[in-house]
Amino acid sequence: MSLALKLAHKGQYGVKSNPMVGCVITKNNDIIAQGYHQTFGAAHAEVNALAQINHQANDTTLYVTLEPCAHQGKTPPCVQAIIDAGVKKVIVATLDPNPLVGGKGVTMLETAGIEVAIGLLENEAKQLNRAFIKRMETGLPFVTCKIAMSLDGKTAMASGESKWITGEAARLDVQKLRAKNQAIMTGSGTILADNPSMTVRLDNMSNTPLRVVVDGKNQITSPHLNIFSTDASTQVFNPENTKINDTGKLDLHDILTQLATQDINSVLLEAGPGLIGAMVTTRLIDEFIIYTAPILMGSDANSIMNLSIQKMNNKLELNIQDIRMVGKDIKTTATLK
Amino acid sequence: MSLALKLAHKGQYGVKSNPMVGCVITKNNDIIAQGYHQTFGAAHAEVNALAQINHQANDTTLYVTLEPCAHQGKTPPCVQAIIDAGVKKVIVATLDPNPLVGGKGVTMLETAGIEVAIGLLENEAKQLNRAFIKRMETGLPFVTCKIAMSLDGKTAMASGESKWITGEAARLDVQKLRAKNQAIMTGSGTILADNPSMTVRLDNMSNTPLRVVVDGKNQITSPHLNIFSTDASTQVFNPENTKINDTGKLDLHDILTQLATQDINSVLLEAGPGLIGAMVTTRLIDEFIIYTAPILMGSDANSIMNLSIQKMNNKLELNIQDIRMVGKDIKTTATLK
Repeated sequence: MSLALKLAHKGQYGVKSNPMVGCVITKNNDIIAQGYHQTFGAAHAEVNALAQINHQANDTTLYVTLEPCAHQGKTPPCVQAIIDAGVKKVIVATLDPNPLVGGKGVTMLETAGIEVAIGLLENEAKQLNRAFIKRMETGLPFVTCKIAMSLDGKTAMASGESKWITGEAARLDVQKLRAKNQAIMTGSGTILADNPSMTVRLDNMSNTPLRVVVDGKNQITSPHLNIFSTDASTQVFNPENTKINDTGKLDLHDILTQLATQDINSVLLEAGPGLIGAMVTTRLIDEFIIYTAPILMGSDANSIMNLSIQKMNNKLELNIQDIRMVGKDIKTTATLK
Repeated sequence: MSLALKLAHKGQYGVKSNPMVGCVITKNNDIIAQGYHQTFGAAHAEVNALAQINHQANDTTLYVTLEPCAHQGKTPPCVQAIIDAGVKKVIVATLDPNPLVGGKGVTMLETAGIEVAIGLLENEAKQLNRAFIKRMETGLPFVTCKIAMSLDGKTAMASGESKWITGEAARLDVQKLRAKNQAIMTGSGTILADNPSMTVRLDNMSNTPLRVVVDGKNQITSPHLNIFSTDASTQVFNPENTKINDTGKLDLHDILTQLATQDINSVLLEAGPGLIGAMVTTRLIDEFIIYTAPILMGSDANSIMNLSIQKMNNKLELNIQDIRMVGKDIKTTATLK
């Protein structure tokens, strides 16, 4: 199952709104086939593995990181392929959170007389597809907030100048982070100040996340802005297509719900202090990835988010998940408690 | 020599203004004696090691992390003890930066016919006594600036409230940090706001660093303040005993020079944004130790230092030396470039 999880991970840039899935088939404790879901719309992990042994799987055990699908989607149901190939036992890491599938696959396998075990490395399997699972369970995408800041917690000079806070290695890491997400979200302020293109600039990378702009004042109108470059799609949320909240601003929950409805599991927020502060206040951020450069930008510079807190009792608590050096910068991964 | 450096390190809480020194004696490649300088005023490392073999050291090799002293100080010169014991070869990690000793020890050993080699693990030996070396070479103590902040770079709420940003493990680590320094320096603002005692609160720890207050406006007058508790000494720098700089403020360079003159090698700065900013601006800080708590305190809270920078070109650059978790907090060690 550990190998199956590693295989699944290889699909991270290709599966889009699908979950990442890996599959390993053994016979007499020898691995005889392996596969993973590589590209959205293409064959599932189980079918890729079964194809390696011409679907002749008598007396085999099949390890799969996610419950095999029982429904006809873009490809035929995997459960039928597993039954037809003669698999003896199926070991599933975690059940599918998709209401179209949840539990049905296991029931069909058992009805066909196949022994099924569930839960091996379940936490790891859930972590792998946490974005997919979040959308299935809540109707909202998993939101990662990326911040590049100085050691004294600043993201731009008072003048707005912010190039470059972090080093090359961190900026390359951000490109990979973009490629792992289905959408990149920013605010109109960032667009007007920096005119970024917000595309993935990596060799051999075909993934082009949707660019999402939160434009509460209908300011993003010029088609000549880099955010409208032809190498990726762009969606602008403004008062005409978005609910307005009690304070007269765009309802961020509505924006994320609309994105989830478009099968977007994962959103990378790369924004200024205003939008980040609003996303934190509304508790819509799941994870922070903070690149901290070993520099001091001083007390006149801008803080990472506009967030009004007056008492220590009201501070927001996080859990540090990971901390490591990326080049000369520190990369901290944290989740809100 | 690696063992000798480890032994030397054991003296960190005891040697005060002396350097930490370790010594290992071998005969036919077997370790037959080891010693380190334990307490200010007591025997040096070499003499402690020689005493283990009753000063009978024929055909031995003596490894010592710092050049043996040639002068009569609080104890007799080590060089004479080494010669008298019959040591055959002496391996020295680094020469003594003390102008009273520098090179003389080696010359005396060589004159007595002892083979001497210099430079084995020299960088490590210099790092070990970097504070002592800095004072000897520059007439200024080595200054470590300790900061406890939130993940968004804040040290106190706008109201001044700052208890507690970091967790217990980090606060215990700060106690050890205090015990490793000869002085703890703060500003009058911190004294008046928090009335801290700034002592070392550790079991079995007799080290009591000097408490130093920078009091530019002669505000620290009440003898009832905790900073004047009887369990440690306190020195207040004010316009009466300190030079005034061009901007009418206390000359921080003069304060540090006065401390060095009192044989203080190491100062731990634990201060508010004003004094930290002034110490950074005057380039008097050698090292930052930053405890970052996994919390967000918001954009109304106070930044870690008052430091006016307007352009990215004028940002201050640091080198990250170490980063690790201490309990639930991140401990970052960095030096100014």
